[in-house]
Amino acid sequence: MATLEYFFDFTSPYSYLASTQVEAVAARAGATVRWRPFVLGGVFKATGNRSPIETPAKGRHMLVDLDRWARRYGVPLVFPATFPIPSVLALRCALAAGAQGRLVPFSQAVFRAAWAERRDIASAEVLAELGARVGLDGEALVAAAPAQKEALARQTGEAVERGAFGAPALFVGEELFVGNDRLDFAEAALRQSAAAAR
Amino acid sequence: MATLEYFFDFTSPYSYLASTQVEAVAARAGATVRWRPFVLGGVFKATGNRSPIETPAKGRHMLVDLDRWARRYGVPLVFPATFPIPSVLALRCALAAGAQGRLVPFSQAVFRAAWAERRDIASAEVLAELGARVGLDGEALVAAAPAQKEALARQTGEAVERGAFGAPALFVGEELFVGNDRLDFAEAALRQSAAAAR
Repeated sequence: MATLEYFFDFTSPYSYLASTQVEAVAARAGATVRWRPFVLGGVFKATGNRSPIETPAKGRHMLVDLDRWARRYGVPLVFPATFPIPSVLALRCALAAGAQGRLVPFSQAVFRAAWAERRDIASAEVLAELGARVGLDGEALVAAAPAQKEALARQTGEAVERGAFGAPALFVGEELFVGNDRLDFAEAALRQSAAAAR
Repeated sequence: MATLEYFFDFTSPYSYLASTQVEAVAARAGATVRWRPFVLGGVFKATGNRSPIETPAKGRHMLVDLDRWARRYGVPLVFPATFPIPSVLALRCALAAGAQGRLVPFSQAVFRAAWAERRDIASAEVLAELGARVGLDGEALVAAAPAQKEALARQTGEAVERGAFGAPALFVGEELFVGNDRLDFAEAALRQSAAAAR
């Protein structure tokens, strides 16, 4: 079965937008999604890339652009009080949730909390609550996060080595697609990859 | 009638891609296109933005991305020998062609020469030839270019003031859309604007 690898960081609004679509995209193409948390700040540092908000005109326009995408997808999007979001603890929690088979629902809950509910996902209390919401022991989840430090760093390094420079970074095999706005190209690649495997 | 303002620079491959689509996009929405040359280097300088190629991983990925778009549109795209292209003379010639009512065919000829025929559009001889190709006195066109210096700078400044930070910059009224990959949003805005005017 073809796989859509979806590298994301909770601080990235375009990753949030993609999170609302990837499962449907993959399903349409008869493929599955592999959700892979990574640290966008680490990607920027390794590649020399930088956030759109570092260019004021680009940052202003991004707000308008995000709103257009949210309306197209029919999903809520509220800009967080703090941006960039200090998301490393949440990302480590996501990997810890993954160790219990709950990576996807937990990640979706964190994305919604950050980008639709305006919750502070840098807070251990909020993360514990979100863990509980998807059936995990929330406090144990947060306690398990530090042990995921190296796994998260490894995953980030892997994405960079494979060519990622921003988020979301989507892979179909070694074909890279960057941004929710390239999901249509990724879907075509998934179909092709599925057809080739038949 | 609704208008799609299309700010472009010949050095910008995404402007080239847009140049192959804007007329059809506007026609579908019952709108017209206003072609507006501007200097992308000036936009970068004024806004602090920078070319994707200044981030190596982004530059490498851009080549793949451009190829995907060219295939989707069914248009040729060959990367030029020199990039960025020193395009200021060509942009001034485009304004001079505009003074004779030939802005669009001349600009399309320059885009094709740069991005499909791998010609050197920094060359006065090539520009004269392209002018002649669209029915102008080519040498007179190149001779008229320097007089367009200030008009080109003014147009660049105007785009920046209205929020542009990259190319192509598309406006429907004061709504800004950046990139050929936002033409679908621009088309929706054109339809809305046309409907509101009825």
